[in-house]
Amino acid sequence: MNLSIYKRVQGHNCPKLWQRFVVENGHQQPSTNPLPPTTHYQQQQSTTNFKPFLNIIPIFNENDAVSTRRAPYEDSSGIFWDNDSLAGLLAMELKADLLVMLSDVEGLYSGPPSDPNSKLIHTYIKEKHQCEITFGDKSRLGRGGMTAKVNAAVCAAYAGIPSVITSGYATDNIIKVLQGKCVGTLFHRDAHLWTLVKELGVREMAVTARECSRRLQAMNSEGRRKILLDIADALEANESLIKIENEADVTAAQDDGYEKSLISRLSLKPGKISGLAKSIRVLADMEDPIGQVLKRTELADGLILEKTSSPLGVLLVVFESRPDALVQIASLAVKSGNGLLLKGGKEAKRSNAILHKVITSAIPENIGEKLIGLVASREDIPNLLKLDDVIDLVIPRGSNKLVTQIKNSTKIPVLGHADGICHVYVDKSAKVDMAKQIVRDAKIDYPAACNAMETLLLHKDLSSNGLLNELVSDLRHEGVTLYGGPRASSLLNIPETCSFHHEYSSMACTIEIVDDVQAAINHIHQHGSSHTDCIITENHEVAETFLHGVDSAAVFHNASTRFCDGARFGLGAEVGISTSRIHARGPVGVEGLLTTRWILRGSGQVVYGDKGVIYTHKDLPLQTPLYI
Amino acid sequence: MNLSIYKRVQGHNCPKLWQRFVVENGHQQPSTNPLPPTTHYQQQQSTTNFKPFLNIIPIFNENDAVSTRRAPYEDSSGIFWDNDSLAGLLAMELKADLLVMLSDVEGLYSGPPSDPNSKLIHTYIKEKHQCEITFGDKSRLGRGGMTAKVNAAVCAAYAGIPSVITSGYATDNIIKVLQGKCVGTLFHRDAHLWTLVKELGVREMAVTARECSRRLQAMNSEGRRKILLDIADALEANESLIKIENEADVTAAQDDGYEKSLISRLSLKPGKISGLAKSIRVLADMEDPIGQVLKRTELADGLILEKTSSPLGVLLVVFESRPDALVQIASLAVKSGNGLLLKGGKEAKRSNAILHKVITSAIPENIGEKLIGLVASREDIPNLLKLDDVIDLVIPRGSNKLVTQIKNSTKIPVLGHADGICHVYVDKSAKVDMAKQIVRDAKIDYPAACNAMETLLLHKDLSSNGLLNELVSDLRHEGVTLYGGPRASSLLNIPETCSFHHEYSSMACTIEIVDDVQAAINHIHQHGSSHTDCIITENHEVAETFLHGVDSAAVFHNASTRFCDGARFGLGAEVGISTSRIHARGPVGVEGLLTTRWILRGSGQVVYGDKGVIYTHKDLPLQTPLYI
Repeated sequence: MNLSIYKRVQGHNCPKLWQRFVVENGHQQPSTNPLPPTTHYQQQQSTTNFKPFLNIIPIFNENDAVSTRRAPYEDSSGIFWDNDSLAGLLAMELKADLLVMLSDVEGLYSGPPSDPNSKLIHTYIKEKHQCEITFGDKSRLGRGGMTAKVNAAVCAAYAGIPSVITSGYATDNIIKVLQGKCVGTLFHRDAHLWTLVKELGVREMAVTARECSRRLQAMNSEGRRKILLDIADALEANESLIKIENEADVTAAQDDGYEKSLISRLSLKPGKISGLAKSIRVLADMEDPIGQVLKRTELADGLILEKTSSPLGVLLVVFESRPDALVQIASLAVKSGNGLLLKGGKEAKRSNAILHKVITSAIPENIGEKLIGLVASREDIPNLLKLDDVIDLVIPRGSNKLVTQIKNSTKIPVLGHADGICHVYVDKSAKVDMAKQIVRDAKIDYPAACNAMETLLLHKDLSSNGLLNELVSDLRHEGVTLYGGPRASSLLNIPETCSFHHEYSSMACTIEIVDDVQAAINHIHQHGSSHTDCIITENHEVAETFLHGVDSAAVFHNASTRFCDGARFGLGAEVGISTSRIHARGPVGVEGLLTTRWILRGSGQVVYGDKGVIYTHKDLPLQTPLYI
Repeated sequence: MNLSIYKRVQGHNCPKLWQRFVVENGHQQPSTNPLPPTTHYQQQQSTTNFKPFLNIIPIFNENDAVSTRRAPYEDSSGIFWDNDSLAGLLAMELKADLLVMLSDVEGLYSGPPSDPNSKLIHTYIKEKHQCEITFGDKSRLGRGGMTAKVNAAVCAAYAGIPSVITSGYATDNIIKVLQGKCVGTLFHRDAHLWTLVKELGVREMAVTARECSRRLQAMNSEGRRKILLDIADALEANESLIKIENEADVTAAQDDGYEKSLISRLSLKPGKISGLAKSIRVLADMEDPIGQVLKRTELADGLILEKTSSPLGVLLVVFESRPDALVQIASLAVKSGNGLLLKGGKEAKRSNAILHKVITSAIPENIGEKLIGLVASREDIPNLLKLDDVIDLVIPRGSNKLVTQIKNSTKIPVLGHADGICHVYVDKSAKVDMAKQIVRDAKIDYPAACNAMETLLLHKDLSSNGLLNELVSDLRHEGVTLYGGPRASSLLNIPETCSFHHEYSSMACTIEIVDDVQAAINHIHQHGSSHTDCIITENHEVAETFLHGVDSAAVFHNASTRFCDGARFGLGAEVGISTSRIHARGPVGVEGLLTTRWILRGSGQVVYGDKGVIYTHKDLPLQTPLYI
């Protein structure tokens, strides 16, 4: 069937575009918009079997601007009311292969498209979406609008005609739709089944990763060490292949006009692969973190209890752009005996695919290469985040937005931090030079870091001894934009901040005056994010009050907040910095990928009335594990 | 206004009940049902102003069994279609104070009332429920049904008439509704505001508990010890008051016909209070768990990092019946520096209230008695479970059902276990007597315990050497009902189990034959709940394969699964047994209520280019904390 239909779109703020059914065995005449259909229409008149020239049937609009219709017309074939329902009815009548409706927005959103919380719905599932969506009809002119389009698309889809609502502004959207690309919103009779299949697919991935991880955990230390060394070798052996794929990603990113900083993170620079291989070999030779005896108790004669470290199970790591992150995470997972599901940024797609392939090819068959799964599509993430029974920990490595989104949409524990609102409190007894140096470092060394200072709290007496002015002019001199709390803004004549709970991540900071250390603690508890907070003082007692009183992951005395970092803490590879209180807190090393198991070795003991056992509960030294 | 209206209810399987409006300034003539309204109706005829005798207006039904109406009648006052819409219209017309509609189910459910996942909705919020509810209309006869009742109730409620749908089977439901008790489903114009107020109320409780806990955490060890000793004294001083309230609970529970076992758990037996006080004094004198230095590293000259233990923050504990649990939990919370929200069983309401009052009265003002909050209503629990930003850990103490429900409805980490499907695997090299003793103990010592054996796995060779038959006849002799897997059921001629993932919690167990230790491990991974699993063998290598390979919270060799217990493990007070992998695993003592903080003490160090600092990362001994 070779058939195309143009139909004019009318909408609020929408130029005259031409809406079109395209049913051409996949070959579409590239349509440059806006094309008035007049000529095609004229030519079409002359055909006898209504088969149009250029395979286009133009449809004159049921135009709400001129029509006097005040109620829908309904008969056995359906309801006809506006241009959208007309499109739907025609598509059904013609048994079209596809109905495309062009709009002035990208597709159907979960709420008003102008609301930043609204999300574009890629595949409409009636059961799921019909109640979730809030239509913003009233902001549109005329009949039609998104509600009408959705109704038409649903009717057509349930009659067997797949339908897509997409934007008419992008010239190539119709081509993309025909190429099967994920553009706009798709309506399909079987969409709910696809969702089910997808959900089962990602569950299968996670379950398989757990099975592989159990075999990895049961392996001895030397076995895991050997895998890591093999991965390092495989990376070096495939360096040229990896470079080719990475260069393809970089070129594509340049073509797509990505920012330079992203392209720089994306690119695997010369020496990177051998650097990664080297660090994997160092990791391989580090002490085995699995099976460490953390506690050993003789419960009774011949009954020995051990608390030992063991892998968490299955990790889901979502990371952005850097393909080298994949290598680091995968090797940490192997070292810690965990299964791993990885989702990288789409701009590093080819690099991630080749790195994943090279790494998993080095995993022996008796463990299974599905120990490490690469998640192909962004759309799988919501399904993965539902699997709290098979995924044990989610680690988002990327923007605050990514972390927040993930935290808000899963019951699985998340290792990470959404905010880093770090405070430096300068007490009245602070040394001038030390205060200036720490404040400067905490703000300026790397303003975008999560452990950079966002709020400077100053003891009220500092305004009289001049330190306040010195600190402020220092920051100004460095180019830091200052915002004040109520007291500081009037004292220093700086703009007042609208919220103390604000992370600038740039050369800006909030300043406020507080009465004493207790007021500083209260301020931090009320407005902070429990990441890293610091006091500068020479008064030991005041320092201990602060260290004791501030309930944050990291609390410092006379040291820059920038020290809050896995490498500077000497933890080795940093998995992340956690502001959650459960599982791990602050900078987290490989121990954040481990949990514990209790191992009890007896000689036939039973508890029956506890008569058979005389408990002694004697702690024993934590020597080498009893088992090999 | 004194007015009551009876209206007959008709529904599937529903006896002839009488539905009634009651609007009597809160004083209702107790109505014993089913009362035919004829007499009242006759007397009502004689009144001039339509004010009926007994304040009742009977309404003859728009009876769908005799009516020929096929479409609703609609005018400016609304839609009239069936008896339910008639009730709604009348209530609005009369400006009634309340509309009560009686049904054959308890009220409006989230799904079909026969579905165990359906929940009774206590307060209907249009914005929340109108899309969530699945009506099971088709299972009902006639017009009307729940959809019609809900529509009528919503219409009336939005017109200012509060409406309740409840069951007509319970004779006192109308009285309960008038007494303001939570019966059936309430429809009210302002319901969404109440929900908001309730949500804010419980958030306030949690936020205040956190503020108090921060002050408690900042206190020194002696301060927390003193609070615990004061609580112990206060309990003893108020013993007689506590006994009175507890006896009132016990009497009420007896009157309500509760089970003996529940009444026994509810009752505070003589000597219980002084026993509790004594154990609190022991706890007070135990080593302070807060501020323990778990790791100490010299990062650089004069830059000392400590990882110290600190309270989690705010705990929510939901417990059933035992009021002594409140005392234990509250004292553990004080010891560990945490804020606490408690929700006890409603049958222990008065006991819990007085215990809470006595305990919080012993908390000094500078900490704040709101450190420990008592949640009044079961309805607050869903709101509390939403507060993942202010509550850090939920500990359900009660049935598997309670734990599962809570786990399924919150993002807050839950410390507990839903299932305890524990396995004993008897290897071919097991000692006969040891195997018999452990199997017996694991199943029979306390079959309802979570650490009791549910599945017995037997090596295939045991069928030839006679141990299999000995074990089976032993269990049968003790009265254990046996179910088999495919192999065991045919070999032993016992019924086949429908699922290996089954916790009997009673004198029953599943038996299956496996080929070897690896098959046993696979079986446990596939069907177990990662609680406690045991191997009985004399072969050291096989034992280590099992201890290494089984990925459960507790794995035992030659010892009964019943040892998996905080007290037997020597952990002191047991907070719970966790089968989750994050936070804490297996039996959890007070350390399960703690997290860590990083404390860094410097002398002005900054990271700027890391030039100023030469890292040495030297581990230091974990001596007494540097701060007091």
